[in-house]
Amino acid sequence: MSIVLGDNQYGKAETRVVRIYRDTERHQIRDLNVSTALRGDFTAAHLSGEQGHVLPTDTQKNTAFAYAKERGIGAIEDYALTLAGHFTGDVESVTRARVDVDEYRWERISVDGTGHPHAFVRSGQEIRSAAAVIDTQGPVQAQWVVSGIRDLVLLKSTGSQFTGFLRDRYTTLPEAVDRILATSLTARWRYASTDVPWDEAFAQVRQTLLERFAVPHSRALQQTLWGMGSAVLAARDDIAEIRLSAPNKHHFLADLSPYGLDNPGEVFHADDRPYGLIQCAAVREGAPDAGPAWELPAAFA
Amino acid sequence: MSIVLGDNQYGKAETRVVRIYRDTERHQIRDLNVSTALRGDFTAAHLSGEQGHVLPTDTQKNTAFAYAKERGIGAIEDYALTLAGHFTGDVESVTRARVDVDEYRWERISVDGTGHPHAFVRSGQEIRSAAAVIDTQGPVQAQWVVSGIRDLVLLKSTGSQFTGFLRDRYTTLPEAVDRILATSLTARWRYASTDVPWDEAFAQVRQTLLERFAVPHSRALQQTLWGMGSAVLAARDDIAEIRLSAPNKHHFLADLSPYGLDNPGEVFHADDRPYGLIQCAAVREGAPDAGPAWELPAAFA
Amino acid sequence: MSIVLGDNQYGKAETRVVRIYRDTERHQIRDLNVSTALRGDFTAAHLSGEQGHVLPTDTQKNTAFAYAKERGIGAIEDYALTLAGHFTGDVESVTRARVDVDEYRWERISVDGTGHPHAFVRSGQEIRSAAAVIDTQGPVQAQWVVSGIRDLVLLKSTGSQFTGFLRDRYTTLPEAVDRILATSLTARWRYASTDVPWDEAFAQVRQTLLERFAVPHSRALQQTLWGMGSAVLAARDDIAEIRLSAPNKHHFLADLSPYGLDNPGEVFHADDRPYGLIQCAAVREGAPDAGPAWELPAAFA
Amino acid sequence: MSIVLGDNQYGKAETRVVRIYRDTERHQIRDLNVSTALRGDFTAAHLSGEQGHVLPTDTQKNTAFAYAKERGIGAIEDYALTLAGHFTGDVESVTRARVDVDEYRWERISVDGTGHPHAFVRSGQEIRSAAAVIDTQGPVQAQWVVSGIRDLVLLKSTGSQFTGFLRDRYTTLPEAVDRILATSLTARWRYASTDVPWDEAFAQVRQTLLERFAVPHSRALQQTLWGMGSAVLAARDDIAEIRLSAPNKHHFLADLSPYGLDNPGEVFHADDRPYGLIQCAAVREGAPDAGPAWELPAAFA
Repeated sequence: MSIVLGDNQYGKAETRVVRIYRDTERHQIRDLNVSTALRGDFTAAHLSGEQGHVLPTDTQKNTAFAYAKERGIGAIEDYALTLAGHFTGDVESVTRARVDVDEYRWERISVDGTGHPHAFVRSGQEIRSAAAVIDTQGPVQAQWVVSGIRDLVLLKSTGSQFTGFLRDRYTTLPEAVDRILATSLTARWRYASTDVPWDEAFAQVRQTLLERFAVPHSRALQQTLWGMGSAVLAARDDIAEIRLSAPNKHHFLADLSPYGLDNPGEVFHADDRPYGLIQCAAVREGAPDAGPAWELPAAFA
Repeated sequence: MSIVLGDNQYGKAETRVVRIYRDTERHQIRDLNVSTALRGDFTAAHLSGEQGHVLPTDTQKNTAFAYAKERGIGAIEDYALTLAGHFTGDVESVTRARVDVDEYRWERISVDGTGHPHAFVRSGQEIRSAAAVIDTQGPVQAQWVVSGIRDLVLLKSTGSQFTGFLRDRYTTLPEAVDRILATSLTARWRYASTDVPWDEAFAQVRQTLLERFAVPHSRALQQTLWGMGSAVLAARDDIAEIRLSAPNKHHFLADLSPYGLDNPGEVFHADDRPYGLIQCAAVREGAPDAGPAWELPAAFA
Repeated sequence: MSIVLGDNQYGKAETRVVRIYRDTERHQIRDLNVSTALRGDFTAAHLSGEQGHVLPTDTQKNTAFAYAKERGIGAIEDYALTLAGHFTGDVESVTRARVDVDEYRWERISVDGTGHPHAFVRSGQEIRSAAAVIDTQGPVQAQWVVSGIRDLVLLKSTGSQFTGFLRDRYTTLPEAVDRILATSLTARWRYASTDVPWDEAFAQVRQTLLERFAVPHSRALQQTLWGMGSAVLAARDDIAEIRLSAPNKHHFLADLSPYGLDNPGEVFHADDRPYGLIQCAAVREGAPDAGPAWELPAAFA
Repeated sequence: MSIVLGDNQYGKAETRVVRIYRDTERHQIRDLNVSTALRGDFTAAHLSGEQGHVLPTDTQKNTAFAYAKERGIGAIEDYALTLAGHFTGDVESVTRARVDVDEYRWERISVDGTGHPHAFVRSGQEIRSAAAVIDTQGPVQAQWVVSGIRDLVLLKSTGSQFTGFLRDRYTTLPEAVDRILATSLTARWRYASTDVPWDEAFAQVRQTLLERFAVPHSRALQQTLWGMGSAVLAARDDIAEIRLSAPNKHHFLADLSPYGLDNPGEVFHADDRPYGLIQCAAVREGAPDAGPAWELPAAFA
């Protein structure tokens, strides 16, 4: 049996592009982390080291900066699509491009109650992301956009239980009728098209996720995630699928009984590891095929 | 010359205490990371391993949880003082206690425009801190409180220059008349007493730091830090000293000229390392002595 | 179009199991990070919160500890297979189990030139990993094992070039006929069966990767990776496929000419971001199907 | 009471200098992380933003690279001293310079049993450090060197107990007559002079620390640290003081009794937080004054 080159891709990861719009005295800022990954006709680069088809990753970085000026940035989904379209459209050897963009949020520093025109403070630890994939090898050029949010840290101090679960020889967990439910949510959703009001859609998805975490009583993190994900699909027809990954950040009730104290859900130890990890997808039946949309560069190996 | 035991301390680091107040349906949350460090008569523990004077670090952890219930938490400065007072007052072998507390901020999830009674989302990456030190070996029992903020990420997109600096054989830096100024600020300030409205003071210091970063034109990060620090001392008589540490998070203008593009302060590369590190203190003349207030456990070795 | 539950799994992540073998005075240590992920009949858990089919993640953690005693650990591939077989074989609702294990290496502290019987020092930052997946829903029970290594930091100070690459409007990179090549390698390889001398195979793969990085002249990281991966498949018939992911950790030649110094490949700046990211697979033609072997829990969303 | 400028310093942190010696085909590598911090006459920079006395941090970075070529590196203590001497000696406004250097270890990749001449693999996660401080304002120019090691992860699987400790109302810890003792050691030692065979001294200190951790029975981590530190001073007259900081990385015995299994010190859970933190110094009586040697830049605020 012979040994052959399998899947391969290459690109420039984590180019930190900061774009200032200073057309008026009230500046705008977009603060991005951009990664590109290209596929195509790169067999020679691997087998013989011949680089004639290889656009350097340094060039990919340069392009990320140049496009921030030439085309501007706007919503990160548009910026990612534009870059992906450039690589697949303008570089002959490239047949598929994936562009991942993280965006860090800033808000204006408030001075005397007014947002300052050019001074900003980082807002929140959560990160908005977008990935655009363009593949030119199908019957028609196919495009996918997956948007996301991560490091969205959520906690409910009541309204969560975990009871009636399966028990076996190794089960010692007591049932919990009232517990803290906390997670650091990662959610990513795939759009059914590329004709979407990206910023409005992101805001609506984020708010839906927050509300559906907050309001319904939780019988398990699985139920909560499904409720959040299915609500997003119900709210927006242009989303084909959403995937959620939620570590169960355990908060254990501190045992204060040795000191003669009761602890009716008031004092907890926030533990680090291990953690539960609950993951599910909500899918719209009949949605367009996901193609390579969910393939993550970081997970290649 | 003989070899002797020098400075020593021990404690429990990073106890993650979460306190829920659920007296009404509108819960409150305090989310803390608590570290204790004790000094005293522990020579035997080192020289012979004899532990009769050593209160276990496990007990220190238990006490952090128990006090969260018995005494509640309130402002983290009060909680730290109370714990430090317990260790120095109730444990005979302890002559000095230091308690460091970090607090993570949460805000209520907004549902239909109203903050939810028991569902929260982590708010910001910045961390509020407090350290209380009590030393019983002076002529009178001495107490110090140092409050702080860190991971406060700030950026000005204009209003910053760096010119007229010293040049030597190794200087290649061009002068910059308009640059991005960005930092991740750590500030810590020492109070002159322990009779302080902690939460109000923290809010005022934070706002003063933000405004004095935002408003004045910056001729150098040194000038900006001094302006921020001295304004804090001017605003509050109960603060004796403030120390600021500010990495200069360099944003380099992308060179777009090879592609025929100009770049008048619009597209930047946010670099990671190396970074400038600018540090200074503003001190009130005649303030009470700092004693061990600035000794950090993490910096012991 | 209706909204349906898609892929889903759950488990306990990062259980830190340390197993000491103390049958003789010369202790042995296995230091593991264990993650389990189960799939099966969990629709009710999501849709109604009904947990009757759900084995708690706490139980999965307990089982990892219990099996470390009952069955011992041995090679991490065997331990992962045993745990996966337990979940699929003994828990009726589970149809697929994935167990990921990282192992941290220790070596004996040398005392007077001899390895100490029970004192150890952590050896290297590289991590050995194994993943076992068992799926009971095919025509026969299918099992996959993927072993790996990561954080293997490699550097060649010469013997690497990058020339003859594609140029476009955004290309400014000069050709490099002699450069530093450095990476932090992640490699994962899938075995064709589960009847493998795991430790011997791991050692041979690691050594092959190191040698094939070191020896051949590199015309590009792509060529080097392919050389490393294909050599692994050539060396061992029991490996079906190997995937490599290699950040190009750029070392830029410091420009010393402003100070009248030349720099013939002697002084470099090790940069952090951005970095090239080169990824490829070497595959044995006709190898058994990969099934879900490459699906990473962390990449679910 | 007026507000005045207090302590202040500035510099360039984390310059990643890699030096290749290629005078023969058998290359040598030094891989460093260099930070500089300068003190002196910088009041105007703070109060008015006037930069005439300020050597840019960019220049400090350039100097780190230039000296790696001009002077070479050798032992990191010598490199740090040379750089500190340059800043205090050649820059008029600088009265004190501190240079911190971390060194990452590499070993040659073994090919056919022989170390390769120019291919390396990172060796260990532990980091060797050196800090040189030169102050020109005393009666004579004063110089200090503090060397160190950190991230040295150690574990004993027996030979450690913790009994006979102080108990109070909050104590629940049972006595342990046989436990795992594990830590990630930070040690820093101050030399009495700058005329030291640095590499030889470092190797001897490291080996002494390892042996004194491994061999003596431990009645407490305090006793173990004191034993390690005092042995270092006993071994080398040229060391004035050593400071050790050791997190007690708790390994809790897994409770397997619910499944009918005993666990005589065989299966442990390695916990993350909280952790004990034990710190002590061993000091040679009559040693020269430490001056600013122990002031860490990172701990400034």
